[in-house]
Amino acid sequence: MAACIFCRIIKGEIPSFKLFESDKTFAFLDIGPLSKGHALVIPKHHGAKLTDIPDDSLTELLPVLKKIATASGAIDYNVLQNNGRIAHQEVDHVHFHLIPKPNESEGLGIVWNPQQPDMDKLKSLAEEIKSKI
Amino acid sequence: MAACIFCRIIKGEIPSFKLFESDKTFAFLDIGPLSKGHALVIPKHHGAKLTDIPDDSLTELLPVLKKIATASGAIDYNVLQNNGRIAHQEVDHVHFHLIPKPNESEGLGIVWNPQQPDMDKLKSLAEEIKSKI
Repeated sequence: MAACIFCRIIKGEIPSFKLFESDKTFAFLDIGPLSKGHALVIPKHHGAKLTDIPDDSLTELLPVLKKIATASGAIDYNVLQNNGRIAHQEVDHVHFHLIPKPNESEGLGIVWNPQQPDMDKLKSLAEEIKSKI
Repeated sequence: MAACIFCRIIKGEIPSFKLFESDKTFAFLDIGPLSKGHALVIPKHHGAKLTDIPDDSLTELLPVLKKIATASGAIDYNVLQNNGRIAHQEVDHVHFHLIPKPNESEGLGIVWNPQQPDMDKLKSLAEEIKSKI
């Protein structure tokens, strides 16, 4: 994907504050950080959404993210991966945010409005999803 | 961990709307969903934070999450994993939320307040983190 900014970062055509690179994975600091140490871990395989990435490019992402979380010294942190513009995705190349949460005001802000669950509907939904896996 | 609610769900001591189970991974519907299809994917290995989980219990989590996302038919969705109470973690057993985002009002709400980056400080920070990986 010649036009993808993250593909260009992987190729070194655009500079980045690189943290890690392997055959399948690349990691760098977010230059619009929500907190100190905000990093991005991405598969080199180009795809917009998680469901577009082959399994063999997914398996290493969390071990790499864990390495960086440990190295960063973050105690509390959020891991976030957004799929689709309405879900706050800004670059159409899968990326996992590692966002330290040092205090209430810095880091990721979360709005959590749970719905009243209807247990019968949840049961039916679970059966439906299971049947499609 | 006898008292951990997710360990008890894995053992079947507490019922759940199970979606998937393998040697290392378990997935079920969240009973306080932010949107229809809100699911949790967890390692069977007990650990509070991502950094507590061995790599061989991390590798399958995203492929399983991808399977469920595909089966659920979600178009737009967020993947979120919280570490620490201040980062919105409520159960101290690592869990990845798969949260469909069907519209503005349902699903995950995100508050995003980026900081002004100081490029020299980012460069130093990247060197520091890299040196510890």
